[in-house]
Amino acid sequence: MDENERHREKMQKIQAARARMMETKTDEKGLVIVHTGAGKGKSSSGFGMIMRCIGHGIPCAVVQFIKGGWLTGEQEILRNRFTEECAFHVAGEGFTWDTQDRERDIAMAQAGWATAKELILRDGMGMVLLDEINIALRYDYLDLSEVLAFLRDQKPHMTHVVLTGRNAKPELIEAADLVTEMTLIKHPFRDGIKAQKGVEF
Amino acid sequence: MDENERHREKMQKIQAARARMMETKTDEKGLVIVHTGAGKGKSSSGFGMIMRCIGHGIPCAVVQFIKGGWLTGEQEILRNRFTEECAFHVAGEGFTWDTQDRERDIAMAQAGWATAKELILRDGMGMVLLDEINIALRYDYLDLSEVLAFLRDQKPHMTHVVLTGRNAKPELIEAADLVTEMTLIKHPFRDGIKAQKGVEF
Repeated sequence: MDENERHREKMQKIQAARARMMETKTDEKGLVIVHTGAGKGKSSSGFGMIMRCIGHGIPCAVVQFIKGGWLTGEQEILRNRFTEECAFHVAGEGFTWDTQDRERDIAMAQAGWATAKELILRDGMGMVLLDEINIALRYDYLDLSEVLAFLRDQKPHMTHVVLTGRNAKPELIEAADLVTEMTLIKHPFRDGIKAQKGVEF
Repeated sequence: MDENERHREKMQKIQAARARMMETKTDEKGLVIVHTGAGKGKSSSGFGMIMRCIGHGIPCAVVQFIKGGWLTGEQEILRNRFTEECAFHVAGEGFTWDTQDRERDIAMAQAGWATAKELILRDGMGMVLLDEINIALRYDYLDLSEVLAFLRDQKPHMTHVVLTGRNAKPELIEAADLVTEMTLIKHPFRDGIKAQKGVEF
């Protein structure tokens, strides 16, 4: 048997195993998705999923909890190109070490959460991205038990909610359906490279 | 001192430490970026970075090495909405266990790599996403040493190249500037939930 034949046989086995596995996966439901960890890609993959929804014509929304102070490529594109397809709200004015005003940060985070709930409850909403909400939860700007209770009891069955940010609370990880940790293996900051357009923001 | 005061002081310290760190980060260069690991978000964060570039008006391109068989939200949006802003090429017809034709997979991967090189060398190109190229490298459909030599010797200094897919070769991780491993913490497949629009594709 030549290499191509062996390859075909091996791939047929993998395909059959996958097919058997996928047969058992028949349900659909709106997921609670968490992206956490110190690595990159937490927000950008959330944003990528939002753009995917737009591609599919699925109504979606973004609430940015912390990064409001940045003029990001995401903001540009959602605000200028897809205002119809994706509701976009900024609930924070920057990283909390820049604002240095705890009461204002709390008020902002809570206003953001109120908007988030409204969007999640909106009829036909497919996906809501709560960008950097883990930071707001970490500093107790939002009440974790209220957020968890809402996701459990009030989130519509078919709506996906994506929560991003470092240091996701263990209770949130416990409650989520799909959790990914972005692990930093190597970062160019170590070599004196600054944050760059397109990569970091 | 009340809680808000303590918060302000703590945040001022963090801000100052960050400012000191950022002062040493002054260089800009095109990065070799790798997203690997078994978790989700490798492709979608690459796609998110591409959308960010589009938002900033930075010329960019995508070559999909494996997922060509899927009608993804990414394809929808890049093909229908941003043909001017982002070159989009599909170099694969599906997962390799579906095609079961090693010679065709190899020919496809090599044609994709030829296109990728052309795009990376294109004048003013800001970012090129080589989606799932790690799969093609893993099965030796592409010659790793040739890919590494090209990235090292021929990639224009300011162009970012993003390489995604599980099982990134150790030599590629070694050569890269920025490496993130997406680690699976929890996946709803376990609970019988199938791949869903917007989330997986």
